[in-house]
Parts: sequence; structure tokens; C-alpha cells
Amino acid sequence: MNHRYPFNLILASASPRRKELLEKMGFDFKVEVVDADETPDVQIAVEQQPEWLAQKKADLIPFVGEQSLVIAADTLVIHDRRILGKPQDAMEAREMLMSLSGTSHQVITGVCLRRTHERTVFSESTEVHFSVLSEDEIDYYIQQYKPFDKAGAYGIQEWIGLRFVHKIVGSYTNVVGLPTERLYSELKKITLRPQDSGKG
Amino acid sequence: MNHRYPFNLILASASPRRKELLEKMGFDFKVEVVDADETPDVQIAVEQQPEWLAQKKADLIPFVGEQSLVIAADTLVIHDRRILGKPQDAMEAREMLMSLSGTSHQVITGVCLRRTHERTVFSESTEVHFSVLSEDEIDYYIQQYKPFDKAGAYGIQEWIGLRFVHKIVGSYTNVVGLPTERLYSELKKITLRPQDSGKG
Repeated sequence: MNHRYPFNLILASASPRRKELLEKMGFDFKVEVVDADETPDVQIAVEQQPEWLAQKKADLIPFVGEQSLVIAADTLVIHDRRILGKPQDAMEAREMLMSLSGTSHQVITGVCLRRTHERTVFSESTEVHFSVLSEDEIDYYIQQYKPFDKAGAYGIQEWIGLRFVHKIVGSYTNVVGLPTERLYSELKKITLRPQDSGKG
Repeated sequence: MNHRYPFNLILASASPRRKELLEKMGFDFKVEVVDADETPDVQIAVEQQPEWLAQKKADLIPFVGEQSLVIAADTLVIHDRRILGKPQDAMEAREMLMSLSGTSHQVITGVCLRRTHERTVFSESTEVHFSVLSEDEIDYYIQQYKPFDKAGAYGIQEWIGLRFVHKIVGSYTNVVGLPTERLYSELKKITLRPQDSGKG
């Protein structure tokens, strides 16, 4: 039921957090790191960017055999209609965290499941509420945790999340970087086609 | 700011999850395991049980010096006005998970912070939404993860949470067993008394 998923799963992501989540879900998979240009496309609506980038990442895997299924994902933080991606440096991280302090924002993760002749693309959105952060707390976090690989300059599973994220509405794992529940239900749907076993 | 908390913290809990959360918050502390009778008191309102049990656990630590602060917590699952505690056996775990399948429930964690002459008691409530679980999935989980030390017979951070908890409303760490954000703000308030340094 759990490990004998009928496709060979390929996780197209360098994120250790996505790898850990997929492992905890009980799937066997291999990782292929892709290096996509993550610059948002200004022509595309803000909420659609994560799906669009997830597709782009999935399509960077050069060849997918009939028995393979690529999982790619992209996570963005949206605050006041503004996209917060990965901060370039400590100053940008500081600005991002100051803007998130004492307010709420949306985290959207887009996912693309790519087979040879088919794609499934979806995204989930979670509302995250931060308590007020002091400048000392922001500086301490940036210095100790170096959140330069994280959209919005924070990890909910780290010191800053444990101390200041007092409420979320939606999927928790979506904020970490992969909406695991939705992913599982989509993977089940794919195997429920008549030609497969029907086991998720 | 982070490790020099002006009290010696004592975690009165055997839960490895609470220990891990408090570590990730960046606190130094020691663990003292207490063995409280967790039978709910029928005279006390359902929502008040976790605070009441947290106080009981805190008071089982025999002596607390002037510089010590005991942290005790209790987590309950409430579904349809019924308390789900730790399941006695696989059959009870199965019944609990069947009842949670495809529906939502409340997780309440009560916390007691005890000093020599003072107590702070509070609780947080989080709404947790489960997708539909099949009997196979429930049996697999119970067999593999043995959730007998967990209220409601599940761990949100495990296989079952990753695959089936599609939404929460409130604090995530509260569901794991310790509302870390609230705990941090309460610990800050305690040290903001005039005689202390004012640093949280």
C-alpha cells in the first residue's frame, strides 16, 4: 500500500525539507536537482507563479520514462500582493521579516506531477500569522539560521516559526514546502486509472 | 536573548516531542518525568481538562527553588464533545481514527508554568481537518507507528498527518503537544516583571 507506488518517483528539488517530507510520507524516490531561473514572470498573475515555476522545474528533467513520475514544487510568500522569494542577502531578509512582523501572509506552493504524456498541476495556499518580531530577534535569526534558501526569509519549522507563528489556516506542510496531503490524494488519483492497480 | 532565560527551566514531561520543540525554541532546560493519573475529572468542563491536568503534572515536581520554573503540559483531542485521550490498545486506536476520518476535531493543549509562589495556566485550541481514511490505512498506521502514547491515536508530524491532515486552523505545534508561540510570549511576560532584566 505504501512503498509499492506503481511509478518511479523523481523529486526535482534540492530542498532538504521537501526530501524529508516525501520520506516521512513513506515513498521511495530519487532526487534530481534542477537549477531553474526563479525570476517571476510579470505577465502571469501572482497566485499562478508557483504552479508555473513548478512546471518549469519539472520540465528541466530531460527524459522521463513511461514508469516515471516527476514531482516538482515551488513555494512563494505573498504579502500585500507582493511576492517574497528567496532573499539575496541579510538586508533583504531583514526587510522581508520586518514586513511580515505582526501581520499575516499567504504561502503558496505549486506542484507539478509530470509523466511521459501527462501533467497534473495544482497549488495550495496557507495563511500564516506572525506575532510582532523585534529587530534584535530578526537579526539574531538571520545571523544564526541564514534563511537565504527560503521564500520570505523564514522556515516555519525553525526557531522563528516556533516562537512567532501563532496561527495558520490551511496545510502546515504546504508552508514547509510541499502540500503532502494534497500530493498524496493527487498521486492516488493518478493510479486509480483503469489500467493500474487502484492501490494508492 | 535566547539561552540566558533568567529561570532554570524544568520540563515535567516524558514526551520526546515536547522535548524536541523546547530544544528547537533555543532554551536550555532539564527534563523531570512525572507520572500523573490522566483520568479526566467528570466534574470539570471538557475544555478545561488539559489546563487542569497540566497543573496537576506541574505540582507533582516536589520542590521548585526560587530560580526554577516548571513547564507542564497536557494535550487532549476533543471530537463531538467527547474526549479522546491515549488509546489503551489497537482496537481503541482504530475506533478513535475511524471517528476522526473525514471530519474535523479540536486539539487542546493546557500548559502550566509554575514558580515558587506563582502559577500561569493557559491553553490553546487548534482545529484539525482529516481526509477520509480507509480501514487499510488505519490498520497500517497503527501497526507501523503504534500511536498508544498519543491523544486521539495519531501524530500530526507522522505518516498519517502528512497524508491525511489537509487543514488546520490555529497553532501547529499545539497539535504536536506544546503551543510554542504562546509559551514564548508567556515566558517573556514573566521575565518582564520589574525585578528582572526585561529580556525575553
